[in-house]
Amino acid sequence: MSNEAVTAALLVIGDEILSGRTKDKNIGYIAEYLTNIGIDLKEVRVVPDEMEEIVAAVNVLRKRYSYLFTTGGIGPTHDDITADAVSAALGIPLYEDPRIIAAMLERLQSGDLNEARRRMARIPEGAEHVANPISKVPGFMIENVIVMAGVPAIMQAMMDDVAPRLKTGTRMMMETLEAGFAEGTYATALSEIAKAHPDIIIGSYPSFQDGRFRNQIVVRSKDGAKLQAGVEAIAQMLDDLKSQKS
Amino acid sequence: MSNEAVTAALLVIGDEILSGRTKDKNIGYIAEYLTNIGIDLKEVRVVPDEMEEIVAAVNVLRKRYSYLFTTGGIGPTHDDITADAVSAALGIPLYEDPRIIAAMLERLQSGDLNEARRRMARIPEGAEHVANPISKVPGFMIENVIVMAGVPAIMQAMMDDVAPRLKTGTRMMMETLEAGFAEGTYATALSEIAKAHPDIIIGSYPSFQDGRFRNQIVVRSKDGAKLQAGVEAIAQMLDDLKSQKS
Repeated sequence: MSNEAVTAALLVIGDEILSGRTKDKNIGYIAEYLTNIGIDLKEVRVVPDEMEEIVAAVNVLRKRYSYLFTTGGIGPTHDDITADAVSAALGIPLYEDPRIIAAMLERLQSGDLNEARRRMARIPEGAEHVANPISKVPGFMIENVIVMAGVPAIMQAMMDDVAPRLKTGTRMMMETLEAGFAEGTYATALSEIAKAHPDIIIGSYPSFQDGRFRNQIVVRSKDGAKLQAGVEAIAQMLDDLKSQKS
Repeated sequence: MSNEAVTAALLVIGDEILSGRTKDKNIGYIAEYLTNIGIDLKEVRVVPDEMEEIVAAVNVLRKRYSYLFTTGGIGPTHDDITADAVSAALGIPLYEDPRIIAAMLERLQSGDLNEARRRMARIPEGAEHVANPISKVPGFMIENVIVMAGVPAIMQAMMDDVAPRLKTGTRMMMETLEAGFAEGTYATALSEIAKAHPDIIIGSYPSFQDGRFRNQIVVRSKDGAKLQAGVEAIAQMLDDLKSQKS
């Protein structure tokens, strides 16, 4: 853990997300996971299975953030081009890793190790494996780019494998207050509290269910004392509103 | 409907998605909705509630695609800065729309129409409303940018309101085949079919449940005859594999 902020972007690769055929379950999982280990997810992009699009996004995001995570596109079929795209973006050639071939042969008869399956053993020179306990073919980490599967169960196992190797920063802490009022009722007072507490992040989040709004105020900070001061100021403000209304 | 492809990007605005506190439900909904009306969603980005980030993303995406949809950040609290960001990105000033003030006064006593609530009546000059039947304060459309709420029920109603005003292209059609084999078994043959049918998009999507993989092959095209030819080639290939294995 360092005091410096550690940041990340996530690149979700796949036509199936953009067509709506598959509903993404990885963004929310990775967002929460990274927050919990002290890495700030700053941006997410979803792009189609197109070489130019993936290469461009990889190059923008890996340069801008401490880490870039990708999901999807590492299987054996022709639409799986993530390894090639990362190789092109970084200018590092792929090679067929004999350790991956060996792992595949533990599950396959050698006659079934065809050209398509061998594609999955291609990783950039110098890449570390990211273990896949489910179907064995690993993802990889090269420089600050972490390439993971799109299947949620495999991606989640890969996160557990790679997380201990990552540098992390101070964890963002969070407290949630139930507002109990319409947003417009407390927005001005909340804005004043936000200005008086510039080192904390204050958000107001409405949700709507069964014909009613529920508003929650969320306070986030990496400094516990500042977080607490902000929470107290907001709780006081909500109490004052209650007295005024009653 | 035109023969020209109509494209779109989606910009999800909100710290709560990036922190993992709120799990996004809008990306999948909008992706499926746009596909169904003949608009191709080509890119999604999630950015934090930060002016510079939103302005930069709005300007890249609105220039690149036929439409840019945004969700989130249009409430009355200080962290709701989407209207200001879109105004800054387009160089079009905001004004307080008296029609929105009037709509708010149908639900509020005039003493409750405070400064924070008035912020929600600010839209760019020349913008059209996007109706919000739930909490009445509308989103808006200015040039090719459509600004919607983040609360799913409201966003969904706003999509229904704005969709009839959008130009649409030929709808992408889709057929799904159950592969019944491991991806590596059919990947080479599928790749050959993809090369022989360059006008259709073929994807192979594994999912993993209860310890087993299920692989589906999805064929997409805007041309029904070409779609059908691709589906038949894949069905034949899978049949051939079955004969070989039995």
